Amino acid sequence: MPKSKNAIVGVDMGGTSLKALVVDGRNKILALEKAPTDRSKRPDRLIADIAELVEKAWKRAGLKRSKIRALSIGAPGAVDHERGVVHAAPNLGWKEVPLAAKLRSLLRVPVLVDNDVNVGVVGEHALGAGQGACDLVGIFVGTGIGGGVIVKGKLYEGSRGGAGEIGHTVIMVDGPLCSCGHRGCAEALASRTAMERDVRAAIKSGARSMILEYMKARRKERMTSSVIQAALKKKDKTMREVMARAEFYLGILVANVVNFLDPERVVIGGGVAERLGEDFVGPIRQTAYEYFLRHRDRHRVKILPGRLGDNAGALGAVVLARQRLREK
Amino acid sequence: MPKSKNAIVGVDMGGTSLKALVVDGRNKILALEKAPTDRSKRPDRLIADIAELVEKAWKRAGLKRSKIRALSIGAPGAVDHERGVVHAAPNLGWKEVPLAAKLRSLLRVPVLVDNDVNVGVVGEHALGAGQGACDLVGIFVGTGIGGGVIVKGKLYEGSRGGAGEIGHTVIMVDGPLCSCGHRGCAEALASRTAMERDVRAAIKSGARSMILEYMKARRKERMTSSVIQAALKKKDKTMREVMARAEFYLGILVANVVNFLDPERVVIGGGVAERLGEDFVGPIRQTAYEYFLRHRDRHRVKILPGRLGDNAGALGAVVLARQRLREK
Repeated sequence: MPKSKNAIVGVDMGGTSLKALVVDGRNKILALEKAPTDRSKRPDRLIADIAELVEKAWKRAGLKRSKIRALSIGAPGAVDHERGVVHAAPNLGWKEVPLAAKLRSLLRVPVLVDNDVNVGVVGEHALGAGQGACDLVGIFVGTGIGGGVIVKGKLYEGSRGGAGEIGHTVIMVDGPLCSCGHRGCAEALASRTAMERDVRAAIKSGARSMILEYMKARRKERMTSSVIQAALKKKDKTMREVMARAEFYLGILVANVVNFLDPERVVIGGGVAERLGEDFVGPIRQTAYEYFLRHRDRHRVKILPGRLGDNAGALGAVVLARQRLREK
Repeated sequence: MPKSKNAIVGVDMGGTSLKALVVDGRNKILALEKAPTDRSKRPDRLIADIAELVEKAWKRAGLKRSKIRALSIGAPGAVDHERGVVHAAPNLGWKEVPLAAKLRSLLRVPVLVDNDVNVGVVGEHALGAGQGACDLVGIFVGTGIGGGVIVKGKLYEGSRGGAGEIGHTVIMVDGPLCSCGHRGCAEALASRTAMERDVRAAIKSGARSMILEYMKARRKERMTSSVIQAALKKKDKTMREVMARAEFYLGILVANVVNFLDPERVVIGGGVAERLGEDFVGPIRQTAYEYFLRHRDRHRVKILPGRLGDNAGALGAVVLARQRLREK
C-alpha cells in the first residue's frame, strides 16, 4: 500500500489525448487512464473531462480522495505556474484559463499546473534518460518543437516563466513560415508538421512515395510517428530525404544549445524519438558534434533519446509537484 | 588607503591591447595601465609583457606586492579556469598555455584566469547595465561575437566550462562562412568583421562609400568602431545598410536567447555598442521584441547597451576573482 497522502496524480494534456497516472511516493505507477482530447469543447467542458478522468484513475488505483496529495498537470501552452493559469494554449484555443482553480473546485485536491514540455523534461531528468545529469536540455519533437532547461538539477523557468521555447529559435533567417508568424524557426523546419508539409510538397511535385497510402490504411489524417516509422521501414525515398533534412536541422539546433549553454546532456524526446530511438538521434548527434565549437571533448556531452516515451509528461508533472510541495 | 590585501589587479587581454586595472576592496579604480598586444610574440614573451604591465600598474597605485590579493585575467579563448590554462586562443595563436602558473611564478601573487567575454558579462552584471538582474545574458559584439550567461546572480559556466559561445550559434543555415569553419553563425553575420566584409563587397560591386577613406585618414587597417561611427554620422548609405542588416541579425539572436532562456535582462556590450549606444541597441531591441514568442509582457525583458565600455573585462575579472576567492 502506498504511504498515506503520498499519491500524486500526474496529467498530460496532449492535443489528441488526455492521460492520467496515479503514482505512489516511490514513483511507482498505480493506475493509468486515457481519454481523447475533444478540442471542440469549451474550456469548462474539457476541464470537466479531465476531472472525470482523474477521479476514474484514483479509483482504479484503489484510493480515496483523502489519499491524494495533489494533482499536477502539464498543459500545452504558456503557463503561470504560481497562479495555475494557462495564459495561452493555441492548440486548444485557450486564453487566460484558471485551470488550477477550476479543477480544485471540482476535485477538492491541491492542483499544480506547468507547461507540458517543461514537465516532460523534468520527467526525463528525474526518471529517464537524464538521470544524474546536473545541467540538461530537453528537446521534444512532435507536432511542434518544445524544450526545457535543467540547471543544477532543477527546472529553469526564466524571468517570466517562459524559458524553453526552443522551437521558436530562428535557425534559418527567411526560412519557411512558422505557426508563430515568423520564418525559419526550428519548428518550421524539423517538427512532424514541417516534415509532413515537405513530404506533401514533394509528392505534389512528382516525387514517388507511399506515405499517403500508409496514412489511409491507418485512417490517419496526419503523418503520425507510426506512419513515419512504417515509411522508413519500407525505405520510402521521399520520407528518408525529408527525415534526413529534419535531422540535420535538429543537429544544428542541438549544437546551438550546446555552444551557448554547454549542458552535460541533451535528451531528445517526443513521439518520433520514442518510435525511432537511436535511428533518429544518431544522425542528429553526428551533425551536432560536427557543429560543436569545442570539438576536443565533444563526447563528454551526451545526446540521447528519451526513455519514458509517452509517460514523460505525466511522470514529470508528479516529480515537479513533489519538488514544489516540498519548497512551500 | 585601500584595506590591506584587498586590492586586486584585473587584466583584459584584448587582441590589440592589454589593460590592467588596480581596484580596491570597494571596486574603486586605483590605477590603469595599457600596452599594445604584440601578437607576433611567442606566449612566454607576451606573458612577460603582461607581468611587466601588472607590476607597473600596482606601483602606480602606490601598492607593494604584499598588498595585492590576486591578479585576475580575462583571456580571449577557451579557458580551464580551475587549472588556469588557456586551451586555445586562436587570435593569439595560443594552445594549452598554462597562463596562471607562468604569471604566478613571475609575479608571486595568486592568479585566476577566465574567458574574456565571461568576465565582461560579470563586470556589466555586477557594476554596469546588469546591476540587480537575477538572470542575464550578455552579448559582446566586436571582431567576433561572444556571450555570457548569469543564472541566479552567478556566472553560468556549463559542464565543460564552455558556456556562452553565442557567436557560433547558427541563425542562417547555409549563410556566410564563419571563422569557425561553419556557415551562418551569428558572428559571420553581425560582428564588426562581418560588417567590414559586407562593406568591402558592396564597394567592390560599385556602391559608393567613404569608409575606405575614413580608414586611411585614421590610419586604420580595419573598420574599427570609430570608423563605423564616423561613417554613420556622415550618413554613409552603404554603412547604414550594412549596419541595419547586422542589427536585424542581432535582434534575431537576442530573440532566440529570450525565447530559450527568458532572462530578465540582455546587455549588449563591446566596442560598437560602446560607441553607438542606444543608436545601435534600439533597432536590435525592436527586432527582438517583434520576434519574442511571449509578446504580452515583452517589455519586462530589458535590452540595454553595456555601461562599462572598455573596462568591463578588467573590472569583471576583479569581481569574479573576489567571488572565487570567497568560495575557496
